Amino acid sequence: MSPPGEETASTDTQEAIMEATFRALSKHGYSELRMRDIGDEMEMTRQVIHYHFDGKYDLMSRFLEYIIQQYEGSVEVDPDAPPREELDARIDQCLFGPEFEDFGHWDRMKVYHELFTHAQNDEQHREIFNDHYERIRSSITEVVEDGMEQGVFREVDAARMGQLITDVIHAARGRKLALGHDDAPQETRKAIDEFILESLHADPR
Amino acid sequence: MSPPGEETASTDTQEAIMEATFRALSKHGYSELRMRDIGDEMEMTRQVIHYHFDGKYDLMSRFLEYIIQQYEGSVEVDPDAPPREELDARIDQCLFGPEFEDFGHWDRMKVYHELFTHAQNDEQHREIFNDHYERIRSSITEVVEDGMEQGVFREVDAARMGQLITDVIHAARGRKLALGHDDAPQETRKAIDEFILESLHADPR
Repeated sequence: MSPPGEETASTDTQEAIMEATFRALSKHGYSELRMRDIGDEMEMTRQVIHYHFDGKYDLMSRFLEYIIQQYEGSVEVDPDAPPREELDARIDQCLFGPEFEDFGHWDRMKVYHELFTHAQNDEQHREIFNDHYERIRSSITEVVEDGMEQGVFREVDAARMGQLITDVIHAARGRKLALGHDDAPQETRKAIDEFILESLHADPR
Repeated sequence: MSPPGEETASTDTQEAIMEATFRALSKHGYSELRMRDIGDEMEMTRQVIHYHFDGKYDLMSRFLEYIIQQYEGSVEVDPDAPPREELDARIDQCLFGPEFEDFGHWDRMKVYHELFTHAQNDEQHREIFNDHYERIRSSITEVVEDGMEQGVFREVDAARMGQLITDVIHAARGRKLALGHDDAPQETRKAIDEFILESLHADPR
């Protein structure tokens, strides 16, 4: 085990490499990215990248985990909120991103969606995305189940509903990024309300 | 105008180049593709590619239009079918692809989704996709409007509904390809039925 001081230094360094990777990816895109582009975004010598990571592929996998962690960690929901309120909060966070200053939700999502599509050729990235997708989907499925238990939602296949909402969010983000439909998240929010969540409420009769 | 014989030859040649491009893209992916890879997939000399297309970018734009045309042209719907039947047929075609032998729906969709995500960096491809997306979305929106006029669907924002269904289909295909969820189209079909279309039917009371 490394002494506490060293461990902190290493964490800071890795964070600096991750942020440099993010800036380099935003500029050059995944397929054209070279290790030296990442080095150009850092104040430290680029030897530290090679010290910490075993090539571009290793670095990219770690980077994917890094942005997924930021994304998931950003969802803050009151555990005592009513199910519909929690559902709304989770959908909003995934659609619009956290309101952190400098978080750059859409810049990060641009990289995220590029790596997502690229995962069709990449077993390791596919696994990282699958784990992440499962967590996002489950968090929505669980709220639907809570609502059913509390009698505020009607009985549905909660996993199927969770998957549908997760897919719709993903598509709206992808469409904004790929096709430039800037109103896609807002419009999708309304569609989810009107066409999906509306039918979820338990019939009061 | 070229004499009829020549025109046919040229169309055949372009078709041969398009199919060679498709095979090369399936093997190498978009970002790694070189013109010579396409030449390797052809029986003709690769000079004909340079004769017909002004570089990789021009060829890729034309190829994108080619697979979109195949995709859209494959949707055959009886214009006198009841709205719900037509809606089902359109959703099925987009989700599962046409049943042409050798069409290779998923191989083509793999390329389609790769180019779609890449369009975030490419104004011309973005425009081609936007036109295509608009046609797909409108075809669904129009069926919803027909159903409303005939009184079998309740009054909704038909364009919003058309967009939602288009997004859900796109997400399901993308998830199957990127994450290997082979049951995504079938599961999504059920989710569309249960959670979106069910609420579309006009209340018989």
